Parts: sequence; structure tokens; C-alpha cells
Amino acid sequence: MNSADGCDLFLRACRREPVPRTPVWFMRQAGRYMQEYRELRARHSLLELCRTPELAAAITLQPLKKLGVDAAIIFADLLLPAQAMGMKLEFAEGEGPVLSPPIRAAEDVRKLGAVQDGELSYVAEAIRIVCRELNGSLPVIGFCGAPFTVASYMIEGSGSRNFVHTKRMMYQSPELWQALMQKLVPVLGAYLRSQAEAGAGAVQIFDSWVGCLNPEDYRTYVLPYSRELIRAVAPAGVPIIHFGTGTATLLELMREAGGDVIGVDWRIALGEAWRRVGYDVAVQGNLDPVVLFGPREMIRARVEQILRSVAGRPGHIFNLGHGILPETPVENVQAVVEIVRQFRPETP
Amino acid sequence: MNSADGCDLFLRACRREPVPRTPVWFMRQAGRYMQEYRELRARHSLLELCRTPELAAAITLQPLKKLGVDAAIIFADLLLPAQAMGMKLEFAEGEGPVLSPPIRAAEDVRKLGAVQDGELSYVAEAIRIVCRELNGSLPVIGFCGAPFTVASYMIEGSGSRNFVHTKRMMYQSPELWQALMQKLVPVLGAYLRSQAEAGAGAVQIFDSWVGCLNPEDYRTYVLPYSRELIRAVAPAGVPIIHFGTGTATLLELMREAGGDVIGVDWRIALGEAWRRVGYDVAVQGNLDPVVLFGPREMIRARVEQILRSVAGRPGHIFNLGHGILPETPVENVQAVVEIVRQFRPETP
Repeated sequence: MNSADGCDLFLRACRREPVPRTPVWFMRQAGRYMQEYRELRARHSLLELCRTPELAAAITLQPLKKLGVDAAIIFADLLLPAQAMGMKLEFAEGEGPVLSPPIRAAEDVRKLGAVQDGELSYVAEAIRIVCRELNGSLPVIGFCGAPFTVASYMIEGSGSRNFVHTKRMMYQSPELWQALMQKLVPVLGAYLRSQAEAGAGAVQIFDSWVGCLNPEDYRTYVLPYSRELIRAVAPAGVPIIHFGTGTATLLELMREAGGDVIGVDWRIALGEAWRRVGYDVAVQGNLDPVVLFGPREMIRARVEQILRSVAGRPGHIFNLGHGILPETPVENVQAVVEIVRQFRPETP
Repeated sequence: MNSADGCDLFLRACRREPVPRTPVWFMRQAGRYMQEYRELRARHSLLELCRTPELAAAITLQPLKKLGVDAAIIFADLLLPAQAMGMKLEFAEGEGPVLSPPIRAAEDVRKLGAVQDGELSYVAEAIRIVCRELNGSLPVIGFCGAPFTVASYMIEGSGSRNFVHTKRMMYQSPELWQALMQKLVPVLGAYLRSQAEAGAGAVQIFDSWVGCLNPEDYRTYVLPYSRELIRAVAPAGVPIIHFGTGTATLLELMREAGGDVIGVDWRIALGEAWRRVGYDVAVQGNLDPVVLFGPREMIRARVEQILRSVAGRPGHIFNLGHGILPETPVENVQAVVEIVRQFRPETP
């Protein structure tokens, strides 16, 4: 299995074309679980890594040979667009990102700027470097946070369990929510298009926190803006992966919002998820990231179970149901790739 | 609508008997959103409040007249049984409960004691006081955490986003997980039975964190123990409410584990949840607690929508999809009760 073949595999699966085997990559495949990443991270802040194209490119490349995955995903942070719009972005040790001051009032939304020329272009530049290095041997995936997920961070100021401020804005000040989304969507759209223009062969939209919503709220407050973003990116001509977690009751609506591939978390059987979103889109997923902390024979059983559940239908990209966790044993990530590469559905 | 009628309403709905209107109560209806609670809390630690029957009883009674709900729920903490088994339980300011040392190895499980006589009996005693005060005018609900949720706290030591330690124990040391569950289930069973004997007219089992699991893990590692607990409590002869959050893909399995009433969170339409668990159980839920931060007309619309979606079928108890949040405006909680009390399904 050479890497040129790998390139082909991922993009063909996104388009639901037949492939000799299922392609595989991992959300957060470049990250803290890897020694090479931790060494670079020890010398640079997270923002330095993100904002220095050569460093972001180096991190993007780190896991590729080591894991044998079928795609690279550019190293960046979901909240860079919020910073580019004028918010202060910091990473508190062990606490995750903090955006300040949080967006709560009309005045806060009004102050959010358009992105200045040059801001965010370091991501496109990193993609250019990665593409040059890979020279067509593997596709590069660009990404951004979905409008809801980025907005919820801007409003909460940090991670949240209950999303009270976010939902309160939706419910109490729908016009303010709309104003925020209408500032955000064009920024995210231009950002993803710039990544595609720089050479990204596909893009993924992460709606990581959308699972706090019920279907009605999703339809009213989220779907129109996710759809607007996806439509704005479609002309770039690259496959769009639309991903969320905790979306068992939202999958049909995410499908309605758009995307060529729907990313699914581990809480739902992948076969059922695909049936529900419809076979006219591809699906990506959906091993629980914590299974990578389990014994090898269990990892094998779970990976093969997922592959078997959707075997025979083109359009599955293997991935976890969310990002690789920091303490994950690297050799177990490698093992997953091997299992996916070797898998052949039983002939009946 | 007098309170004796209220008593009848809740228990009859648990048994799916016809009722003149839908009964309503709230998870965490006694708590920080109430001025009366905050005043008591300012003078006592949370553990003092839980472990002093007169104080726990007083807090239990606080919201009843103020809200006009149809049931009382005893004031207690999910983790008291873990403390009774020998773990150190502390409440870090703004951080939630901390159990130490966390249970990670066979030795840790072995050290967990049976509950000493007298430990936990303060909860039954508080129920006795509440029953005496209410004198049959309202039913009292007892509760405990489900085996998974209590065990996950014991293993993680605190709240968790990814439940890595918990799942790692399940996957790597299933015999250790089993040993922990086998110590826990009899403790929880005796605890709930003692609450029923003290006068609780119903009991609720909170599987608050079970939504991190996929259906397969639930079936293997959780269902047998939840079922064992429910079977152990059934002879007490009171309705059992089986509740969890993030359970959109687990509802059928929760039903299989047991319970007379299945508690449902807001992420799924209640009518669909009921169809899936089957009409031979009652359902409880399922307004998003954050809707109580919204404008009054929206609260009304959402409450009535839930009521309308299951109207005409006996066996619905109105509640939120999770506990009342600390900053919730009391008057909005009162408004929900009013809306439920006044609701009459449109005649066609």
C-alpha cells in the first residue's frame, strides 16, 4: 500500500467511490499523545505553534509516517478565528482555551472586527508548506469550528457544561445571536476557502459542542448558519466533512445543513447513523477514543466491528468518534491503522 | 387543586393510571437557585446539611409550597454512599465533589467497606421527618446514583469529561469493574430500600453520566448491575424512576434494565422517547433546564409542546431533562408549574 494510493483512498471515499480498503485518519492525530509533539510544545506556546507556519507544518507532518494514515490534517486551533476577530485567546494550563472578554451584549458583537489581511493567513501558509512536503503523496484536510461551536466559546469564554450563556442569548436575544452568527459565518467561510485554495483537498467543520442542543434548537439557531457556511465553501470544490459529538438526535438535521461526509461519534452504531443520514452522503467514524486505552484484542474487535457494520458500501472513512486523547498509547493508534489496512470483510 | 390530589397525581402517573392533569416536580428543586436554601447553606457545609436529618428535611420542604409541585424529593448527595463505604468526600468551592483516593486498583476495591450501621441512616431519618411534616399531603421521592454513575465518580475521583479511568477499568480489568459493581449494588439497594421503608413513595435512580457510553458498553458493563439494583429494590413496592442524560441511544437498554418510569433528557423529543421505550412504562421529562433562562412566552411554548406531544396517554410526569441550574430565576420555575397545572390538551 503506497502513499499515492492512500491519497486516492481518502478523497475517493469522501466521494463514495469504491476503494480497495477503508481509508483511516484521526482527529487530533498530531498532538500531546506523541513524544515528538511534546518536545516541540516544550519549546513553544500553543499559539506560537499555530501561528508559525513552519512549526504548524512540522507538527502536521509528524504523525503521518509514524501512523501510516491516509490523510494529514493541518495543525491549528478551533478558536484562531475568534482571535483574528479581536478576542483575546489564552491557554490556561490544564484548563483549555479562554477567550476574553466573553461576548454577551450587542456592544460585544459590534466590536468584533472583520479579519485583517494577514490574520489567519498563517494557516493557509502552513497548508502550502505541508502540500509542498507531501508533494501529492497524501491529501491535507483543512478545518474550522462550526458557527455554533465557535460562537458558544466566544459567549461562554471557555469550555462549559451547561452552555447557559449561549442558550440564554439564543432564547432571550435571538437577534443578537443572529448578529453574532452573521459576523462569524463569513469569517469561517473565507477561512475554509483560503485553506482549500492553499491546497487542502478536503475540509472538516467541527461542531464539537452542538450535542448540548435538542433538535428544535438546532433547527432554529444552528442549521441555517451551518448551511450558509457549507454553501459558502462548496464552490471551493473540495469534499466537506460535517462533524459533531453527542449528535444522536441531530444527525438528520446536520445532513440537512449539508456536507459530503457526516462525522459520527461513538454513541451511535455507525450503520444506524448511516441509515439515518442517508446513503447519498459518506460517513466518518466512529471508535470511542477511550477504547485506545483498552487491550489490543478489544481494540481489534471494536475496529473490525465498525468496519464490518458498513462493509460493502463505498463511502466510509475510519476515524475515532472524537479527537485522540492526550494519554493515548501511540502503539495503539498505530495498531488501529494496521487493523483497518488489513481488514477484509468476510466473504459469505 | 389541593395537595392531597397532588399526592395522588404523581403516584398514579407513575403507575400509568389516568389523572386529571399531568403531575410536575423538578430534579434539584431544593437547591442553590432558592434564597431560602442559600441562607441555610451559608451557615452549614453541604455535608452537614445532608447528614443532619432536621436540616435535610427542612431543605426538602422549602420549595414545596413556593413552587406548588406534586412531589418532594429528599435532599441528599449522590455520593453519600461512597462516603459511607469509606471514601473521603469533599466539596471543593465551585468545583463539585471530590472523592479520594480514587479507586483504581484491586486493593482500592478491596478496602471499600460495607456500610456501617448508622451510616446513611440519616437519609432515611430525614425522609421520616418529611413524611411526618407532609402527613400524606405529598409523596416523597427517595433517590440514589446508579451503579455506573457512582462508580465512575469513585474511579475518576471527580467530575470528568472523557471518563478515561472508568472506561480503562472496564476494558482493561473487567473483573475489577465487576468487583466494584458487586460491592456497590448491594449498598445502593439497601440504601434505596431503607428510604422506601422510611416512607418514600417512589425512588429515582440517577444515571447522570451514563451518556458517555455507547450501547455496547452499556449492555456489557452497566445494564446487568442497574438491573440487579432495580430488582433488589422492586420488593419495596414503590415505583422506580430510572433516569439518565445523553441517553438517546441507550433508552431501550435502560428500559431493559428496568424501572416503572424512564426519565428522559431534552436531547430527544419526549414522544419519540416514549415510543422507543414502549408504552408499558411511564416517562418523565424533559424540558431543557436552560429554557428556564428564556423569556416567559418561550417557556410556555416549550412546556405546552412537551405536554401536547404526549397528551391523551396516561403515564407522563413533567420534569426538566436534568436538575435545576443554580442561577435559574425562581419565578420561571413557578411559571412552569402554573403552565403544567393549567394545561388542557386542545379538543380536536
